[in-house]
Amino acid sequence: MNAAERVDKLRSLMAEKNIDAYVVPTADFHQSEYVGEHFKARKFITGFSGSYGTAAITKDDGGLWTDGRYFFQAENQLAGSGIRLMKMFVGDTPSITEYLLANIPNGGTVGFDGRVLSMGEGQEYEEALSAKNINIHYSDDLIDAIWEDRPPLSKKPAFFLEEKYSGESCASKLQRVRKAMENNGADTHIIASLDDVCWLLNIRGDDVDFFPLLLSYAIVTMDKAALYVDDSKLDERILKELAKNNVSIHPYNDIYEDVKKLNAQNTVMIDPMKMNYALYKNIPCRIVETANPSILMKAMKNEVELENIKKAHIKDGVAVTKFMYWVKNRYDKENITELSSAAKLTALRAEQEGYIRDSFEPLCAFADHAAMMHYSPSKESDVTLASGAFFLNDTGGGYFEGSTDITRTFVLGSVDQQMKKYFTAVVRAMMRLSRARFLYGCYGYNLDVLARGPIWDLDLDFQCGTGHGVGYLGNIHEAPTGFRWYVVPSKNEHHQLEESMVITDEPGIYEDGQFGIRLENEFIVRKGTKNKYGQFMYFETVTFAPIDLDGIEPEEMSRDEREWLNQYHKDVYEKIGPHLTDEEREWLKEYTRAI
Amino acid sequence: MNAAERVDKLRSLMAEKNIDAYVVPTADFHQSEYVGEHFKARKFITGFSGSYGTAAITKDDGGLWTDGRYFFQAENQLAGSGIRLMKMFVGDTPSITEYLLANIPNGGTVGFDGRVLSMGEGQEYEEALSAKNINIHYSDDLIDAIWEDRPPLSKKPAFFLEEKYSGESCASKLQRVRKAMENNGADTHIIASLDDVCWLLNIRGDDVDFFPLLLSYAIVTMDKAALYVDDSKLDERILKELAKNNVSIHPYNDIYEDVKKLNAQNTVMIDPMKMNYALYKNIPCRIVETANPSILMKAMKNEVELENIKKAHIKDGVAVTKFMYWVKNRYDKENITELSSAAKLTALRAEQEGYIRDSFEPLCAFADHAAMMHYSPSKESDVTLASGAFFLNDTGGGYFEGSTDITRTFVLGSVDQQMKKYFTAVVRAMMRLSRARFLYGCYGYNLDVLARGPIWDLDLDFQCGTGHGVGYLGNIHEAPTGFRWYVVPSKNEHHQLEESMVITDEPGIYEDGQFGIRLENEFIVRKGTKNKYGQFMYFETVTFAPIDLDGIEPEEMSRDEREWLNQYHKDVYEKIGPHLTDEEREWLKEYTRAI
Repeated sequence: MNAAERVDKLRSLMAEKNIDAYVVPTADFHQSEYVGEHFKARKFITGFSGSYGTAAITKDDGGLWTDGRYFFQAENQLAGSGIRLMKMFVGDTPSITEYLLANIPNGGTVGFDGRVLSMGEGQEYEEALSAKNINIHYSDDLIDAIWEDRPPLSKKPAFFLEEKYSGESCASKLQRVRKAMENNGADTHIIASLDDVCWLLNIRGDDVDFFPLLLSYAIVTMDKAALYVDDSKLDERILKELAKNNVSIHPYNDIYEDVKKLNAQNTVMIDPMKMNYALYKNIPCRIVETANPSILMKAMKNEVELENIKKAHIKDGVAVTKFMYWVKNRYDKENITELSSAAKLTALRAEQEGYIRDSFEPLCAFADHAAMMHYSPSKESDVTLASGAFFLNDTGGGYFEGSTDITRTFVLGSVDQQMKKYFTAVVRAMMRLSRARFLYGCYGYNLDVLARGPIWDLDLDFQCGTGHGVGYLGNIHEAPTGFRWYVVPSKNEHHQLEESMVITDEPGIYEDGQFGIRLENEFIVRKGTKNKYGQFMYFETVTFAPIDLDGIEPEEMSRDEREWLNQYHKDVYEKIGPHLTDEEREWLKEYTRAI
Repeated sequence: MNAAERVDKLRSLMAEKNIDAYVVPTADFHQSEYVGEHFKARKFITGFSGSYGTAAITKDDGGLWTDGRYFFQAENQLAGSGIRLMKMFVGDTPSITEYLLANIPNGGTVGFDGRVLSMGEGQEYEEALSAKNINIHYSDDLIDAIWEDRPPLSKKPAFFLEEKYSGESCASKLQRVRKAMENNGADTHIIASLDDVCWLLNIRGDDVDFFPLLLSYAIVTMDKAALYVDDSKLDERILKELAKNNVSIHPYNDIYEDVKKLNAQNTVMIDPMKMNYALYKNIPCRIVETANPSILMKAMKNEVELENIKKAHIKDGVAVTKFMYWVKNRYDKENITELSSAAKLTALRAEQEGYIRDSFEPLCAFADHAAMMHYSPSKESDVTLASGAFFLNDTGGGYFEGSTDITRTFVLGSVDQQMKKYFTAVVRAMMRLSRARFLYGCYGYNLDVLARGPIWDLDLDFQCGTGHGVGYLGNIHEAPTGFRWYVVPSKNEHHQLEESMVITDEPGIYEDGQFGIRLENEFIVRKGTKNKYGQFMYFETVTFAPIDLDGIEPEEMSRDEREWLNQYHKDVYEKIGPHLTDEEREWLKEYTRAI
């Protein structure tokens, strides 16, 4: 059954239910960024496999909304489906609600599975569509009815994250969250986001692609808590810890009915960005809407986590450096493809102690593939590496000591002057941001220009954020802070830079059909001098792997910039060198030389 | 009568009227930044002469709220008055309303002259003070009753700004404003801000310190307009122009009664930031609140204005360059003081064709005086220039071709390494911002770090905005755009950078009791390349005068930065050189040499 046939089946069902348009987002019931196979409904219906996108199918039309990262990939994958690519944030592209308002008659009906839309999104649809008295039908998952071989929900076991990794007991975290509930006048807190539940209870699982999260919900009250989860996943260690903290266990789907039993006297604190529309609709009492307090708590890593994160990055840097050595020395001697290189890098990471799994889907993109910002290789698209091009790798490892996210772009053979000029601009862009010193109170939008400036100077732009928070065995893109010059309310990057946040810095240049360059380090937000002007802050870089000197034109860099790069490479050699073979170390010395 | 005695008299009047606290801002009836002598009530009552500050006097206490620019000056001038300096935006300093709430009993009364508070401020007082049922008494100007030798309202003549200077007819401006009224569903527009009235009608006056503005209000309807002004100031040229555009003339103060005569069917468009509280209270019909449309219109200069502005800056650069030559060569040969140098610079500007008057109070500050960011010399404070220090000049000229605002800091004799290091950081800061290329849509807060970065790198901060819009024979600080890293709602800098805006770039370093360094150029916002990434923008610098090479440590600058400075100085030599004496030109050659 191809995409066009699947869309036809959906349209038949829509006709039966009298639905004029059906909206299919990329989402599970928890507003997770990456979702398990069971939840890939939008991919099923449209064929588009990117991590970000929403489809809307009408009786005779269909659109797929996604952003600049995915335009290329989406155009390819949508071909033949009859679904049009709707380029978000470009020109006059209508938003989905604008599109629905224009294409559905007065008094018509829009349908979606209320569990896979956030509460905020559902309310936006309600409000926008009310202009034409359009009804919302949210109680049916039409995709389920036509998806014959739909993968079942994950059954994989959970594990407990010991305090030497988490750095804070579940009891202490519960206490801090209850304090926030008190401050918000709430006696009940419903948590539907997986990373918030997992952080709070110091548990992890394997239910979502890549992120080590457990499908679950939690309800926290002032003296106890309830965890909604498939209990076959829980081991003795977890059961003991939950019991100790007065956390009861309930079947995963029971939350929808249990919520209805709250008293009218209760006040429930929920995060409208982290709550699905159907669950929200079941709450019968007063609601306080606020960001989950655990979002900021877990973004500001504790000292145990920070020390672990630094260790994880050394391990990861060793794997990436070994990988770089292997790729650059072997690509012209054996057949290495995007997919086989990704497998090699995963194997090198797996050799490191404490490795759990990759922290997200490896994005290994050769030559023009890298111009598609979030391209990940498939059997169909895979190509063999060759000389005279860039090879971009945006990958990460999940270790008990934390998750990493690193991008390096390697030069294979030699590249022309313009490519070197662009590569050097990306090096300078990344460095300028990582070297920033700033007063406490700055937001990402205050500093983003430091990275974007060298790219803008070339009349180019990378059309996405410059960086994001990184979860500790949680989401790889973690709220509430990132780098972006314009404010995108839905991106949940509304918070100023706080001490001990861990954030990426990943500018790039992408030339359609030619090449893509991205470099990404992670850093920790640190406190510097405090004086009469305020609290100064700076970034401590924690990612250590060579930046390919074969791509750099030293003349394009200022002396300051070269000095920083030389110091960085000196640190790479000192930290990574001891973990390499003699041969690799000799090579690393050359690739971390001063320029 | 000293300040303490004046405050005593005020307290007697307050007691008579049963007023618990009386608020005295720096304001005329038009929310002007600089005001005529008649309106300097806060200076009269407190002794503090800075341009920014509000006093609140209670029965047994008194405070003066001002910001970082004025802390030093205010502490000196308030000494002995019994009024305490309240440092805004520092630590736990209460806001005025917080202070009033804490110091006035339930059901008490706060008084102020309703004409000298903005509508927005008055409403904020209403709202905040309602928490303790505090009444607002806004119908009495108590200061007037105790100010025996109060200067009368200005009687100086107005003049018409011909189209070769304004670049747009009054008819065209009225048409654009009426279009905005229509878009806002309003049939009547009350304009109370002087620069908006003057811009709209292409008239200017001499009623405010420095800014060439005319005390007036306007009411615009769809087919006519009314100007409220002392008609003895108007000449034949103006009368003819007003008649042609169907603008009737009415006594200045009649507007308060005329507004009451509006019909209930009328819809009035007003700007809450540009309307006084008393006038607002008199409006009997529906109100649409929005920024005056003329704010954005006049901020985006037309081509005639831009060409004129560039001419004005050449004239001004000639005056400043001659001044620099004179100061640096004569300060050790004759007695030159802050005040006498300011007079010399005014005289040099006055030699230029089309000079009207200085565009604001000359801030000529020697050595430690310059650490007070907005210090202006007085007879009491004046000092003689001497060797081994910085001499800061923040000054400007008003010409028919526009207003200028320029700051240069001169080195007298030689200064130590640290001072040079700081001076060089300020040069780099100013340059980094002026060289920015960016995508359309950026706000000042996106780019501010470019200027602030080199200062923050030294763990220093200049604690005020980096730049402001500049009016064309209007306000020297012109809304709606400026550079600042944090958002200050009251500052009216809420707009993104638009083509043809003229903005200053003036970072600095201020060391209390030691020295102050500030450098300021103006630039025009220009459109650059437009491509698939969007509309790129850049700045065209229009200020041309040497940056004192005696303060620069070339080693502190990157090659790029030195190249930019050398190119800038080459331009200065080419543009300013031809207007100098041979002797001056020889000197300029040396002071614009490549480094």
